[in-house]
Amino acid sequence: MPRIAYLGPEGTFTEQAARQLLADTTEGHADLVPAESVAAALDAVRSGERDAACVPIENSVEGSVTSTMDALADGTPLVAVAETMLPVRFDILVRPGTTVEDVRTVTSHPHALAQVRRWLSVNLPDAAHAATTSTSAAAVAVRDGQADAAVCAPLAAERYGLSVLAGQVADVEDAVTRFLLVRRPGAVPPPSRADRTTVVVVTGDSVGSLARVLNEFALRGVNLTRIESRPIKGSFGEYRFFLDFAGHVNQAHVGEALAALRRHCQDVRFLGSFPRADEGGSSGSDEAFTAAAEWLAGIRSGGRA
Amino acid sequence: MPRIAYLGPEGTFTEQAARQLLADTTEGHADLVPAESVAAALDAVRSGERDAACVPIENSVEGSVTSTMDALADGTPLVAVAETMLPVRFDILVRPGTTVEDVRTVTSHPHALAQVRRWLSVNLPDAAHAATTSTSAAAVAVRDGQADAAVCAPLAAERYGLSVLAGQVADVEDAVTRFLLVRRPGAVPPPSRADRTTVVVVTGDSVGSLARVLNEFALRGVNLTRIESRPIKGSFGEYRFFLDFAGHVNQAHVGEALAALRRHCQDVRFLGSFPRADEGGSSGSDEAFTAAAEWLAGIRSGGRA
Repeated sequence: MPRIAYLGPEGTFTEQAARQLLADTTEGHADLVPAESVAAALDAVRSGERDAACVPIENSVEGSVTSTMDALADGTPLVAVAETMLPVRFDILVRPGTTVEDVRTVTSHPHALAQVRRWLSVNLPDAAHAATTSTSAAAVAVRDGQADAAVCAPLAAERYGLSVLAGQVADVEDAVTRFLLVRRPGAVPPPSRADRTTVVVVTGDSVGSLARVLNEFALRGVNLTRIESRPIKGSFGEYRFFLDFAGHVNQAHVGEALAALRRHCQDVRFLGSFPRADEGGSSGSDEAFTAAAEWLAGIRSGGRA
Repeated sequence: MPRIAYLGPEGTFTEQAARQLLADTTEGHADLVPAESVAAALDAVRSGERDAACVPIENSVEGSVTSTMDALADGTPLVAVAETMLPVRFDILVRPGTTVEDVRTVTSHPHALAQVRRWLSVNLPDAAHAATTSTSAAAVAVRDGQADAAVCAPLAAERYGLSVLAGQVADVEDAVTRFLLVRRPGAVPPPSRADRTTVVVVTGDSVGSLARVLNEFALRGVNLTRIESRPIKGSFGEYRFFLDFAGHVNQAHVGEALAALRRHCQDVRFLGSFPRADEGGSSGSDEAFTAAAEWLAGIRSGGRA
């Protein structure tokens, strides 16, 4: 049975994402093990102690998870083989029997409190707010009577024996978090209807070096879905670029663009090609590339152009 | 006396940055007023209630402050007129007389705890960690006896009557946070030795639209210092790009690049030109642009090319 690490503690959105990712694969059963940090989860895969890791990569409201990006860009290479997206909707959890009138204190991780601030100000305007180190720690605090209500991932209610005072709470209706399932390099998942590929590149710092990278994509019809510069060593000065784009490394137009990057960037790290979790994307077509390759082969073999 | 809003509460790094920004300007004296959120600080400037706001924009370890980026991109336009950078070094604060042996609990905002995790594991390995909503709230908790040590901005020791158990603590040596001073649009600060300009653009979602933007910069020798895509409405799908680059809007090569963006982007919002706080940058030269403009003017006036 594969052993999958995820960013813990238990009962958070990341455990929920890990369960969803595993349900989507044929494996079905797996041993899910919480890790203390993203770096610890990835290092457990690198060392062979775990077979894969589920980690958050970006939130549509909060932005990128920089600890995940940096941990994937440094150290022994790992690759993402799947992604999933979860709506950021919280449950407000209380001890069974607690009513709205009983709630004097609300607790959660500051990020979670921030994401339901408006809802709290309308529905629990008089409750004091207290911070915890995770949404699950908030559930524990409510279970143990240290607070009256916790802002949690839906998974936490059953896990900690709490009742749902209000469900599906979110200030931003469509907020979503994207998670990756990451493994040691091996066979790339085959192309699907719509894939995403992710790389990190170091371009060198001459003027126009990033424009050259993007031109290689644009010239081949490859559509970017995310770009972000990140300082290399935790201080401003040297940068690397994280790029997500539509398509699969096995496609001709994507492969040719990646090979071009390899030729003129200081460093290119492939972080995986995998089916997209969002609707409406497409991987772009290799049709024109295949026809042109046949035409070229024809010329080279002495046929008519 | 100008009234300056800053992301509160009192005694955090943002207050320290606000004091540094004001010391750097000729104004000297100002009335610093904490705001509850970045959005609240900026809205107070928009409404005229405050004259300027000091807000964090990016941290070299944690990444961009997405709430600041989104609040600058939406709503009535504001412009940055100055920036400053603060090293991310924390003081470990205790009640006077407390020794290392006395510390059983350490408290702070989860981000601050994360940034000194290694130091804590070496120096206070047995202390339990508890979360607060800000580094200043942690100082208050220690003052009130609810915890033994707080991870705080240096400003907090004096503010809350605490002693420094350890100073200048940081797991990442060169970590830095950058802050902006933001005002209502008005006279742009004059060019200095080395400036930074910041814009947010909506390119439309055709393949290659971002490459075209970067080409306009590359063709004119404008050096990017940061790039980041952000979802427009809190959900993935539509994006805008935040771009920082060397140079000042009054320079010919920068102005020409911005005008080109204006021609072929759906939207371009100018977020300010101001002196750079980091060393070693330069604004690039207008010399070749000036010479070429004179040459062109000569042709047009019938002179010899």
